[in-house]
Amino acid sequence: MSETTPHWLTKRADLSPDKKAIEFEDGSSITYLELFHRSQSYARKLGKLGFRQGDHIAILSTNCAEMIQIIYACSYLGAVAVLLNTKLTINELNQQLLDSDAKVIITSESFKASEFVLQRMDYNELESVTEDTSIITLKSEIYFDDIFTMMYTSGTTGFPKAVQQTFGNHWWSATSSALNLGLHDNDKWLIPLPLFHVSGLSTMLKSVIYGMPIYVLEKFEVEKVHNAIMDRKVTIVSVVTVMVQRLIKRLGNHHYPNDFRCMLLGGGPAPKSLLEQAKLKNIPVFQSYGMTETSSQIVTLTPEDALKKIGSAGKPLFPAQLKIAHNENNPNQIGEILVKGPMVTKGYYKRAETNKEVFENNWLHTGDMGYLDEQGYLYVVDRRNDLIISGGENIYPSEIENVLVQIEGIEEAGVKGSPNEEWGMVPIAFIVCSRPISENEIAAHLEKYLAKYKRPKEIHVVNELPRNAANKLVRHNLGK
Amino acid sequence: MSETTPHWLTKRADLSPDKKAIEFEDGSSITYLELFHRSQSYARKLGKLGFRQGDHIAILSTNCAEMIQIIYACSYLGAVAVLLNTKLTINELNQQLLDSDAKVIITSESFKASEFVLQRMDYNELESVTEDTSIITLKSEIYFDDIFTMMYTSGTTGFPKAVQQTFGNHWWSATSSALNLGLHDNDKWLIPLPLFHVSGLSTMLKSVIYGMPIYVLEKFEVEKVHNAIMDRKVTIVSVVTVMVQRLIKRLGNHHYPNDFRCMLLGGGPAPKSLLEQAKLKNIPVFQSYGMTETSSQIVTLTPEDALKKIGSAGKPLFPAQLKIAHNENNPNQIGEILVKGPMVTKGYYKRAETNKEVFENNWLHTGDMGYLDEQGYLYVVDRRNDLIISGGENIYPSEIENVLVQIEGIEEAGVKGSPNEEWGMVPIAFIVCSRPISENEIAAHLEKYLAKYKRPKEIHVVNELPRNAANKLVRHNLGK
Repeated sequence: MSETTPHWLTKRADLSPDKKAIEFEDGSSITYLELFHRSQSYARKLGKLGFRQGDHIAILSTNCAEMIQIIYACSYLGAVAVLLNTKLTINELNQQLLDSDAKVIITSESFKASEFVLQRMDYNELESVTEDTSIITLKSEIYFDDIFTMMYTSGTTGFPKAVQQTFGNHWWSATSSALNLGLHDNDKWLIPLPLFHVSGLSTMLKSVIYGMPIYVLEKFEVEKVHNAIMDRKVTIVSVVTVMVQRLIKRLGNHHYPNDFRCMLLGGGPAPKSLLEQAKLKNIPVFQSYGMTETSSQIVTLTPEDALKKIGSAGKPLFPAQLKIAHNENNPNQIGEILVKGPMVTKGYYKRAETNKEVFENNWLHTGDMGYLDEQGYLYVVDRRNDLIISGGENIYPSEIENVLVQIEGIEEAGVKGSPNEEWGMVPIAFIVCSRPISENEIAAHLEKYLAKYKRPKEIHVVNELPRNAANKLVRHNLGK
Repeated sequence: MSETTPHWLTKRADLSPDKKAIEFEDGSSITYLELFHRSQSYARKLGKLGFRQGDHIAILSTNCAEMIQIIYACSYLGAVAVLLNTKLTINELNQQLLDSDAKVIITSESFKASEFVLQRMDYNELESVTEDTSIITLKSEIYFDDIFTMMYTSGTTGFPKAVQQTFGNHWWSATSSALNLGLHDNDKWLIPLPLFHVSGLSTMLKSVIYGMPIYVLEKFEVEKVHNAIMDRKVTIVSVVTVMVQRLIKRLGNHHYPNDFRCMLLGGGPAPKSLLEQAKLKNIPVFQSYGMTETSSQIVTLTPEDALKKIGSAGKPLFPAQLKIAHNENNPNQIGEILVKGPMVTKGYYKRAETNKEVFENNWLHTGDMGYLDEQGYLYVVDRRNDLIISGGENIYPSEIENVLVQIEGIEEAGVKGSPNEEWGMVPIAFIVCSRPISENEIAAHLEKYLAKYKRPKEIHVVNELPRNAANKLVRHNLGK
C-alpha cells in the first residue's frame, strides 16, 4: 500500500506558520502560511479554469515565487507539473508539450512566444481568475505513488523523454539527504540553480519538509552567491563544478562564515586542484552523483574523504543501493552503474519499451560507467551515452547529431565534448557532407531546433567518422 | 509496493564502520562494524539452531549489548523479535509466550526461571553455538511491510495483546523524530529506559538509521543519568515525568552543558510547576504523546511552546495526523483521540476482531480522550481505558481487576490510579467480597499473576462499586 502523509505544505503551514519559507533577491520573503494560502489560491483558480486531478500542467519559468506556488498548486489539485527548461527553443518546447500531454502551459510574463502548440497563460492572467471554493476539493493528503512532477532528459535515443517523479521519490530524496547532511535549526539553503532542474526542485521541497528557509536566486551569478554566503546566513548551497571555480576566485583571501557548512557539488567530479584550493580555504565541498531519474543526488562524498578519495562521488545515501553491472565483487573493474532505492523514478512517461530495457528488478541501468574501489567508493568514469555536462546542463550528443543530419547534404554527424575553461565542457561537431554547406545555413537551422547551450561551438567537416567494427560511432575518437 | 532499503545495520556499517555505535555504563563501547559482525554472528547461530524467516523469537532481558545484537540478529534472519517486560511474573510471561507463538525465549543469565512454557536459552548458551555460514542467507534488504518487533500492551480487555511493529513503522518513527528535533553531528542519545519498551527500542534503531551513538543504561538511576548529561556529552535523553523531577532535584544549582539539547518527555503531561522549574534551569523539556501502537512519540511540544501551552502534548509530527472523533471542527471539545500515519501499527497480533474495532480507514482509535485548542495543540484529558502511568510503565485497571476477581470470594473489583509523589500514579483497588479474605491471601495471589508495579498499593473493601446507568464501572468515582 502506498504511504500516505498529510499534504506537506499544509502540514508545514500548521507547524511553522510564521517561519520564513523563501527569501528572494530583492530582500522580500514569504512565510509558510503565506506560501500555503497563495498555493491553494492558485489551485482554486486552476480548478475554476477546468483543470482537474490527473491533468498535466506545463510550467515554463525562471525561478520566482509564482513558479513555486503553481508547482504546489498542482499538488493540491492532484495535477502533474511538467517542468520545462527555459533555455529550449520553441521547437524543443513544443515537442515536449505534445509528448507530455500537457493541457496548458503557464509561463512568466517574459515568455511571450505565441507559437506554443497549446493554450498559454502567464502569471498575470492566472492571477486574474476569480477563485471558486465550491468547484474542487483540494488534496489534504499526499499519496507516495502519485506522480508529482515530470522533467525531460534525452539519454540514448536523442529524443527527450519525461522522467516521472512521484511524491515518494521526492520525499525519500529529501529525507535521505537529511540523514546524510544532518538537519540544523539555523539551516538556510541557497538555490542558484533552476527549479526546472531536479537540484533546484528538490531543495524547494526540502524547505517544506524540513521547515528550512531557502534563498532563491533567479539564476546563478557569482557575486550574488558569494554575497548570500557571506552576508545572508546561507549554510548550504547546491552548485556545479564551474560555479565552484568562480566562487573560489571571488572569495580571494577571505573565508566563508563558520556556519556555512556545505557546498553540494553535482555535475561531474571536480578536478584535484580545485578540491585542494577548496580545502585550503576551508570550503566544505561535498561531491555527489545523481540524475533526474534519482530525484537529486544519490551518492555523496563527505569533505573528510574529499582529498583521500579524489575523483570519487562517494557512497550511496542510506536508503540507496548501487552496484556495477556483472561485477559485484570485483573492485576497480569498470562497468555500468546500476542504482536502486525509493528515490529512483518508476519510469519514463509513455516509454514502455525503454522502461523495460533500463529497469531490471527495480535496479535502474544508468548508462553511466564507473567502478567501486576496495572500500566501496564510487568513481564515475564516463557519463552515460557520452553525456556532455556544460555549466551544469546535460547535453546528449545524439540529440545534436539528429538535428544536424536534418540539414540536407549533411550525411553523418558526430558530436563530443571538448574541455572549456568557462563551462567545463562544450559540444563540438564533426560532419560528413555531400555538398558544400555554409556556416550560416547550419547556424540558422540549429538556432531553430536547439537551445543555445546545446549548439556546437565548433563544426568540423571531415571525410568520415570514426566507427568501430559494428559500424558504431566511436565518439571519443572524433577529431583524432 | 512495499518500500525497500538496504539492511539498515549493514548500510550503517558500510557508511560509518569505525564510528561509535553504543556506549555502556562500564565505559566500553562498540562500533557499527562490530555491532554488524556480532549481530550477523548471532543470526547465523540462530540459523544453525533451526530458526528461520518468519519465526517468532522472544527476548527477555534488561538493557545490554547482547540484547541489541539479538534483536538485529532477528532482522537478519527475517524473524520477529518479541520483546518481553522483565518486570512481569512467570505467569504473565508464559501467557505472552503462548500468545505470541514464540519458538524460543532468549534471556540474559539472570533469568534462571525454569518454568517457561517453551525452550529457554541464555546468552552464553547461544554464544556457544558454532556458526555455520552455509545454512541460511542473511537478509541484505529490508522490506517495510515486514513485521520486525512485537510488544505487549493490555488495553480495554485487560488481556495483553501484541502490537506488531513493521520495519516501516520504525523507520517512519525515526525520520519523523529527526524532522522534528533536527540531526546534529555531535548528537548522542541516552537510553535510561528499557529496550523492551518502544521508547528505548526506537532510540536503539535511530542510532543505526542516523549514525548516532547511544549511551545505554541498564536501568534508570538518577545519578547515572545526571552524570551522563554532565560528563558524557549526551545531547538528548528520553525520560518519563517522574525522572524529570528527580533529575531537577539532583541538578540543584548547576546547569546542564550547552550541548544538551533535548529532554524528551513521555508518559503523561508534566505539572506546570515542574515545567517552570525546568525553564528556570534552562532544561529543554519536550513534552510528547505516543504509545506502543505509534512506535514511539507521535505528538510533540517544543520547549518554546512549553509554558505557553501548559499541559499540551503539542502537535502531530510531520508525517502524522490526529483528530478528535466526531469533532473535527470544534476546538476545545473533548472526544476520543484518533491518529494516522506510517508509524502507526497495522494491528494487534491474532486480534482480528479488536483490529476491526480500533481501525477505521487507517485511523487508529487510541481510546484516549482529549481535545485540540484553537491552534491545533493537543491536550490529553484521560488516558485510554483509565490507563495508569506509573513511573513510565502502563498499567491497565481492567487487567488488575481480572486478576483480583479470580480470587474466590471477590465478586467485583475496580481499580484506579492514585497520585503518588514518587511514581506519578499508583494503582489502588476497591473490591466487593462475599466472604472475609485476608490481605495475605490477596497478596499471594497478586504476586503470582501480576508484576510488582501493577499490584495495587491499597485495597479497600466496599459494599458496591460505582456504576452508571448501563451498569458500567465508573472508575473515577471509586472511593468517592
